[in-house]
Amino acid sequence: MSELYAVRRAQLRDRCAATGSTAALISRPANVRYLTGCTPPGAALLLGPGGPGGPGCDVLVCCRPLTGDPTEGRPADDVRVTVLPARDTDPVVAAAGLAAKAGAEVLAVEEHHLTVTRHRALSQVAPRMRLADLACAVEAQRLVKDDDEIACLRIAAEISDQALGELLESILVGRTERHLALELERRLVDHGADGPAFPTSVATGPNSGRAGHLPTDRRVEEGDFLTVGLGANYRGYRCEIGRTFVIGTTPADWQIELYDLVFAAQKAGREALAPGVECHEVDRVTRHILETAGHGDGLGPWTGHGVGLEIDEDPQLSPGAMGKLDACVPVTVEPGVHIPGRGGVRIDDTLVVRPEADGGPELLTITTKELLAL
Amino acid sequence: MSELYAVRRAQLRDRCAATGSTAALISRPANVRYLTGCTPPGAALLLGPGGPGGPGCDVLVCCRPLTGDPTEGRPADDVRVTVLPARDTDPVVAAAGLAAKAGAEVLAVEEHHLTVTRHRALSQVAPRMRLADLACAVEAQRLVKDDDEIACLRIAAEISDQALGELLESILVGRTERHLALELERRLVDHGADGPAFPTSVATGPNSGRAGHLPTDRRVEEGDFLTVGLGANYRGYRCEIGRTFVIGTTPADWQIELYDLVFAAQKAGREALAPGVECHEVDRVTRHILETAGHGDGLGPWTGHGVGLEIDEDPQLSPGAMGKLDACVPVTVEPGVHIPGRGGVRIDDTLVVRPEADGGPELLTITTKELLAL
Repeated sequence: MSELYAVRRAQLRDRCAATGSTAALISRPANVRYLTGCTPPGAALLLGPGGPGGPGCDVLVCCRPLTGDPTEGRPADDVRVTVLPARDTDPVVAAAGLAAKAGAEVLAVEEHHLTVTRHRALSQVAPRMRLADLACAVEAQRLVKDDDEIACLRIAAEISDQALGELLESILVGRTERHLALELERRLVDHGADGPAFPTSVATGPNSGRAGHLPTDRRVEEGDFLTVGLGANYRGYRCEIGRTFVIGTTPADWQIELYDLVFAAQKAGREALAPGVECHEVDRVTRHILETAGHGDGLGPWTGHGVGLEIDEDPQLSPGAMGKLDACVPVTVEPGVHIPGRGGVRIDDTLVVRPEADGGPELLTITTKELLAL
Repeated sequence: MSELYAVRRAQLRDRCAATGSTAALISRPANVRYLTGCTPPGAALLLGPGGPGGPGCDVLVCCRPLTGDPTEGRPADDVRVTVLPARDTDPVVAAAGLAAKAGAEVLAVEEHHLTVTRHRALSQVAPRMRLADLACAVEAQRLVKDDDEIACLRIAAEISDQALGELLESILVGRTERHLALELERRLVDHGADGPAFPTSVATGPNSGRAGHLPTDRRVEEGDFLTVGLGANYRGYRCEIGRTFVIGTTPADWQIELYDLVFAAQKAGREALAPGVECHEVDRVTRHILETAGHGDGLGPWTGHGVGLEIDEDPQLSPGAMGKLDACVPVTVEPGVHIPGRGGVRIDDTLVVRPEADGGPELLTITTKELLAL
């Protein structure tokens, strides 16, 4: 595994050299993990100009010793780990100081992650070193996933399916959104997740169908729509699944109608996924079906997004999204409709974009999308 | 309650006026909540120069409709809520645009919260408006808590004590750190918390005593030290409690010795809390006891910190901390020692600083600090 991280860092180093930076400072946690295998809280990675072992070798600056917890990960062998003395609290500033000492003239930093105040502190610690913008170079590298990354996502999806499947076998009426969410999170961990990939969403009755709904004390009632959104974090990789069910024996007509509509929109989005397709086009086909049916107003800014070391990463499937899909890019397709006062439907899958010749998009979250009455 | 928020905003507006800013843009979530009663994800508060109802009245710019969930809160009556159309995704940039339109010449922003990239986007949306630094003006206002805030913290502490108390009555041997942590979080919610104040920490055996340890699959064994750190979030207010126990009938001599030492350090810190005392002095008396006993090396950068709308806010009790304690400032006192390979002890309380005449520091987390053998 260590070689993999070395290759990623070498790629980034080449890119920096090409744009005139002699060193790079990576502070965004998911980027640090991608390049080193490890994300101690607050740590910063200094990508030296000398390469591994050289005078400017890659250094992970931490504010406390590593723990080796799976949620934190372990650093690649060729990354030097430096733990700051207790009183020096910002690893980013310390790393910039190291870069200056090593003679770096231009240090590329993540301006989309550093605050204005921290950026100023960097200038002050090394007034003669010029700060450049690394921009989203690491995010761009993270876009297309390798086999190991996809394997982790596949396991994360399996765990999520298992946790959801078990919940469906239990009695739901009378239980609160909060309790169902906590139970799902426990089941994720039972099945091997390092933790939930994001706060589990359970929405009942009038809350159902709302994107990112935070669980309340409302109890599940007969006749409710129940929308569940959850995902496992497995070795840092996060996936997402969302389903909507009906509580009781027979769904009402409006419920069947709304479900079929969202299902059709989600299906259209899934089927649109292919290498070379514009991201906004996937959004458009999904959104179009909901808009045509008169549900355009309440739609969120996107109908899907990339997943990986973060639950919400590039690409975004939104009307303004630039760029095209590539093979081996995992994304969610997750349209939803929420009718204020009544509730609604969301259906959410994690898929990997694959060429037609390889069988088209690979569905990672395989729980049925039939409208189940529980 | 709405008046309370209006008073807070008026105070901030006065401060801005005094420093030459005609409007302020607040983006840090806890600050937005403090000033409006509400924190929709990603929302930004524009504090207008005209005052409530005036042409530049206070506007909360959100990227989706409010939900009214307790975790999100509800906005004060005199705050105008603007929901952006789906395609306009950064409320901070939109709010700066509003400020420019309303004729603001100088807009104070939170440079310690805005990234360099977002700050640049603000300059671009309103090139003629000068951006100034609001710095930590809102954080400074948040330092001393009013009675309502302390009442919320008191309830959060009660909930935390209850959850911990119930755990102690159950059988612990053989259960994993992860499961105990999830159970504690469920109990917090059972007792009325909006959720955990921070990720619950359960550390057994060699992991015990480690600050912020993330639960693993290690199971509780006879003879272990067990360190638990948890806290409830109640209406946005977060508290913290940490205790260390021994599993089995009789603690070993080294366990009793280490426990007594950390207990003494924590007691010294608690007793040092008083209005007018330097923050670094509280840290010093705590740290001194551990250092004298030869445990100085592994100590973290601080031995306590403020709590409120965030779990880790000002003041910091650390060697380099500037400033003095005030009455009605809630803080944690939480020294710990971790001996690699063996484990250790942490004891953590949330207290409110009170003058001697009012009985001295008010202990919010009242679970016993005797060394219990479970």
